[in-house]
This record gives sequence, structure tokens and C-alpha cells, in this order.
Amino acid sequence: MPNSRSTPLDTTAVRRRNLSAVLDLVHRRRGVTRADLTRALGLNRSTIGDLVGVLVAHGWVDERDDQTRSGVGRPSPLVVTRDRWLVAAINPELDVIDVALVSLGGEIVARRRTFVERPSAATAVEVAARVVRELSAEHPQATVLAAGVAVPGLVRRGDGCVRLAPRLGWRDEPLAEALREALGMPAAAANDAHLGSRAELTFGAGQGAASVLYLNGGPSGIGGGIVVDGRPVEGSAGYAGEIGHLSVDPRGIACACGAHGCLEALVPRAALTAAVGLAHPDDDELDAALQQAVTAEGDATGPVSSIVREQLGWLSIALRSVVNLLNPERIVLGGHLAALWRASSADDRAASLAEALPVTATDVRIEVAALGAQRLLIGAAELAWDGLIADPTEVVPLEAAGASAS
Amino acid sequence: MPNSRSTPLDTTAVRRRNLSAVLDLVHRRRGVTRADLTRALGLNRSTIGDLVGVLVAHGWVDERDDQTRSGVGRPSPLVVTRDRWLVAAINPELDVIDVALVSLGGEIVARRRTFVERPSAATAVEVAARVVRELSAEHPQATVLAAGVAVPGLVRRGDGCVRLAPRLGWRDEPLAEALREALGMPAAAANDAHLGSRAELTFGAGQGAASVLYLNGGPSGIGGGIVVDGRPVEGSAGYAGEIGHLSVDPRGIACACGAHGCLEALVPRAALTAAVGLAHPDDDELDAALQQAVTAEGDATGPVSSIVREQLGWLSIALRSVVNLLNPERIVLGGHLAALWRASSADDRAASLAEALPVTATDVRIEVAALGAQRLLIGAAELAWDGLIADPTEVVPLEAAGASAS
Repeated sequence: MPNSRSTPLDTTAVRRRNLSAVLDLVHRRRGVTRADLTRALGLNRSTIGDLVGVLVAHGWVDERDDQTRSGVGRPSPLVVTRDRWLVAAINPELDVIDVALVSLGGEIVARRRTFVERPSAATAVEVAARVVRELSAEHPQATVLAAGVAVPGLVRRGDGCVRLAPRLGWRDEPLAEALREALGMPAAAANDAHLGSRAELTFGAGQGAASVLYLNGGPSGIGGGIVVDGRPVEGSAGYAGEIGHLSVDPRGIACACGAHGCLEALVPRAALTAAVGLAHPDDDELDAALQQAVTAEGDATGPVSSIVREQLGWLSIALRSVVNLLNPERIVLGGHLAALWRASSADDRAASLAEALPVTATDVRIEVAALGAQRLLIGAAELAWDGLIADPTEVVPLEAAGASAS
Repeated sequence: MPNSRSTPLDTTAVRRRNLSAVLDLVHRRRGVTRADLTRALGLNRSTIGDLVGVLVAHGWVDERDDQTRSGVGRPSPLVVTRDRWLVAAINPELDVIDVALVSLGGEIVARRRTFVERPSAATAVEVAARVVRELSAEHPQATVLAAGVAVPGLVRRGDGCVRLAPRLGWRDEPLAEALREALGMPAAAANDAHLGSRAELTFGAGQGAASVLYLNGGPSGIGGGIVVDGRPVEGSAGYAGEIGHLSVDPRGIACACGAHGCLEALVPRAALTAAVGLAHPDDDELDAALQQAVTAEGDATGPVSSIVREQLGWLSIALRSVVNLLNPERIVLGGHLAALWRASSADDRAASLAEALPVTATDVRIEVAALGAQRLLIGAAELAWDGLIADPTEVVPLEAAGASAS
């Protein structure tokens, strides 16, 4: 069992942690002054100077004057990310393998979508590895250090084995391992909704909140991610976050999972796309069409407005349960749930948590996702950054740096 | 936002953390050999020796030969808890103020129940402070260092203010602050079900599991606690864990909270006590009576058996939702939910997670609580130990110890 109170550390570990803490803050804030580092990390100025020096010397960050300050005194140098070291982000989907190179700070440096119909896991690995090599060759100034994969399915914690990806037809595929071999670098895999929630938490609509609940609706259902005290909740084996399979109506219709009345069975994307008469809209098209239809109807009993109200009703039951259970600070809605939320009336939105416990309902803010389609790749990149940021000394040999780190 | 990857540390902090890590392990395991400490904490033998020396010198722990070992070689000294330093645990309830002194290792050294009908917060503080002083006087070898309170209500994280304790009729009572003043020592307060779950996790049915869901049923409803990766989930303001207010039936009866079809409205303790014809049974009496009645009926359609089946059905819907959401390793049922579980047939118990996602359902084990009525006091004590274990140097001045702690 992990120790909930504290973990012991020796001196090498302290140097590693301090480098890691600086790198992590530069990453999450996409640039930070030395003065802010000193304040945020509670280390003294010379230690911060040493740590930043090590990271600059080894290509992790750059320093430049902070142009945004206009106060008195010498401006504190701004520590910014650079793209000497990159990670690869991979998202295999039903008809496309989406690959990107991502820099520190979660910025997409290059992206390539390769269309493949229902790829096998082997094909996905082969295509992804080839595209990573192509993109790397096009960015000779950079080196790709690790890879992360966002999988539309259940992924086992620890080894990144895909237990089940129903849409792709994958079952028990050792995806992370295969990719590690094909690329010759560390690789990790996790559920796409988990990673989307991490991305939204770090760089999007969840930024600044410590407890976030993220619900994403797509053609294959509703997935989710939970962040508690700044940490993603993975569950004992990595399968946490299946908000789509919350029971909202015990007498409800059968869900693909075999149970009855699951949220995702009662709030399907297909019902919204059918209501607005679109065959394969992307999220932006659905969002625009829904709002247009509801406005055109101008009447809560109109056919599209009725579906929107009904779906929001079921969503509200799920939100109430989860808010009472987890007391989150923020709820982020993505995919068709964002479109549903934006098409709902202000009154219906305001009433969505009316049945939650008042003390928990007053704490929570509901927002729509901010990162759009890039969130899964940025989340996959976060997975790859984890190991590198936790131990930058693997890439930055401290001995060679000649700088002391605390 | 807390840093999810790492936090920086200076040398003093490292010494403090190492002492804390040793103390925490001795506490949670109620005694541990030096060899196990070395292994578990990854520090070298002489460092562990120094750290244990500091803790022995200052009365936190004792060392003695490990009698349980019969292998070859010199036995590793056993580091055990002692009762030089204690904490006070307080649990105000509808008709009693329950107070205990608790040693490291969560062992109750002394306990006194004072009967008071529906105490005000001021009365509860006054009685608790008096009893703590009485019990302290009866244990002159020990010093009480801090206090923790388990409150049957919603308690705000951070300042321990009781926002609402419906049964006691308390609202916005600054309980922790009042107790801190009355006792002249650090005091903290939290929800009783949260603390019960912590106690069960650390010393009871949740021991050894990193993700635990704890549901406790009592006369006033169903409360819960969630532990993720060894850490209690408190929520953004401390109100997480309200499993009793999960929606299990949108068409269900009204709950005291104002919503409809909450778990606690559909699984009331009163229905079970009425079924077995007992007025005010404690949990053990209810447990025995239910099992006796179900066995006597010998028929799933009998009146008591029917109520048991119906309640288990609603409980199963809630469990399925939470298991899908959190993928816990263990579920611990306490109070009347434990009695309900034990009175259910083996078939019904086995079917309780039949509608959960198979990958998550296979991971989880359902157990009944092990600590009984003491769990709330032990949990309240954990709250008091938190600060002491996190920073034992506040009580153990390192300079005086003359031992280096890495």
C-alpha cells in the first residue's frame, strides 16, 4: 500500500525531485519566471538558478527576459519551454491513426493523420512507428524521447495492455510493449477519456482546479476522467472513470455493456445527430446545428428541444450522483455532451444540479471542454512526459552538468 | 493546484520526512522490524538505526527483540509503539459524547461514554474537554498531544467547521476551533463516515488495499468514504463520500435531502429493524436477528427475506455505479449494510455486481467492516495523528537528539 503520509528520500533523490519540480512547473505553466519558481517551490534563489542552469545546459528549457513585466527593479528571467526534446502522441481510432510530436508545455509541433479502416493493433503500431520516424526526420533539431497512446477502450494500468477496445475490435493487445519495441523508446498507453481529462485539467477548462470530473461523449458512448487533489484517479487496475455506465434508470433500456439504464444508453450522440438530420457531423457541426435548431424552434416542446431536455434530464441525474459522491470543484463536458449543454436553456442548465446536496452543488462549476479535438493527443503526450519529467536526470546526466542541485 | 508529479525538498525537510516515514510505518503496522523498515523505506541500515534512535530517545517507540522469528542469524530488533504520547478521539452523537485516548497504532488506551441528550456544540466541547482532562489525569505516564473529532454531519475541509449535522441540529459550528481553545492543543474535525473508512482502511477490513470504498449504514442514513491510491478522497470542500445520496431510482420516494430515489431513502435501517420487530437494536443485535429471521423463513418470499432482497437490489445498483466509476479494489460495508449483506443469500450476494463492467467487477472484493463500533474513534484519532506523524520534529527537537537523520 502506498504511504499516504510521506515517502523517504536520499540526497540523489532530492536533486532529482528538485529538477523535476522545476521542469514540471515550466511545463504546466508553459513558461514561468525564476522569481515565480522560487516562490512556488520554496527553494532559495541560488538553488533555482542552479537547477535552471542544468535544464538550460541540457536543452530542456531556455531563458529570456520577461517582456511582460513593467514594474520597478530588474525583471526576473523567464524560463520557457523549447522543442529540443519531444514526445510522440498516438491516437488510433476507427478509421484513422492520429500521430503528433508534442513539446514540453503540451504544444503540438507536428501532426499527421493516416487513414486506415479498422486497423488491427499490429497495423496501428506499424503505422504509428513509421509516422513517428517520418515526423522526426522532418524535425532534425529535435529528438523524440518517449511515446504515449490514447486508446478508445479499457487499458490495464501498469503495462498498458489493451484489455478491450470494442470499436476497434481489440482484446488483450499488449500495445505499449509492441510500440516500445517498434520505436525503441519508452511507451505507455491509457484510456482516451482519462487522457483527455488530464489534458483538459492541465491546459484546458480544468486548469487551476484540483478536483475535476470530465465527461466526454462520442459516437461510441460516454467516457470520463476523474481528478482528485490534482491526481488522475485510475482505479485499482486502470478502469476508473466509466461515467457512461452509471445507472440512471433501473427500468431503462439495455446498454451495450449488458446492464440496464446506463447514462450512455439514455444519452446517445446518435439521437442528437438524427434530430438535426446530420449523418456524420463532427462535434463543431453538431454543436452549431443543435443550437440553430433549438433557436429556430423557440419552444421547449419542439422535437429537437424535447430531445435536448430529455437528455439533459438524464445527464443531470448522473451529475447529481457524482457530485454528491466526489464533491468536485469543476465538471468539464466534452464532445456531444458539450453540444447538449450549450443547446440547453439557461433555466434547464441552472436546474441541472438542483437535486444535488446544496453544500456540494454550490462548490461546483460546469464548463465545456476547451481543447477540442487536440485534447486526446495532448493527453497522450502527458503520459509520455510523466516519466521524463519525473526523472529528467535519465536524459540530463547530472555529473556532466557540473551544477549542484540543492 | 497541487503538483501531481513531485514536490521539492530541502535537507531539513528530508530529515523530517524520513522520521515521519518511519513513524508512519510503525503506526500502520503496529510494530515492524528494523530490517522491514530498511526494505520498505529504501534507506540504508545505519540511517534507519539513527532514525529509530531519535524516535526511541523521544518516547515515540520502543525496541525489543523480535520473538516471532525463528530463522538463522541475529534477529532484527522489533520497533513497537508505546503510549508515552497519545491523542484524544471524540465522537459526539445524538445521546452520548464518546471520548477515547488512543496510542500510536490506533489502539484505544482508555474510553469514556458520557450520556447527554442532543448536546449543543458548546456542550459537546465542554464535556469532551472535561473527559479528556479526566482520562489524562488517570494516565499520568502519557501526554495527550492533539485531538480529532468524528462528526455525524458535513464538515468543511481545512477549518473543521461543522456546516450541517442534521441529527444533532448543528449548523455552522466552528467545532475544531472551539475544541482547540478548550483543550489548548491542535484539534481537527471531519465527517464520521470518512473517518470510519480511514480506520477500516488502515487497521480493519480495508487493510492492504489501495482503493477502497466504504459504505456505512446507520439510523440517520448511509454515509461513505472513498480511498484512492491510499489517500482519502475529501472533495474540493470536504463533502465527498455521500454515497447515500446516489440516485438509484429517478422515480423513487423523496429523500430527506430533497431529492428523489436516493440510496439511503430506499435502503433505510428502520425497515430492517421493523421487519425483525426490534425497537432500538445495536448493529450486532440487528445482524443476529436478521440472520435468524431469514433462516427461520427459509424462503426468499418470506416477509423479512423479501425486504432483504429488495434492499440488496437497490444497494447493488449503487455499487455497480460506483464500481464502474472508481474501479476500487475493495468495498467495505458497515452498520446495517453489513447486516443486510450477511443476511442475503449467497446467490444474491454473488449477483450483486452482475451488471457492473466485467473488468471492474472482477477486481473488487466485498467485505463487512471489521472494527465495529470503535472505528469512528480510531478514525478520529487518525485525524489527530496526521499532523504529529507528518512532523514529529515539532515534538521531538532534532537538535537535542544528537542523531543525524540522513
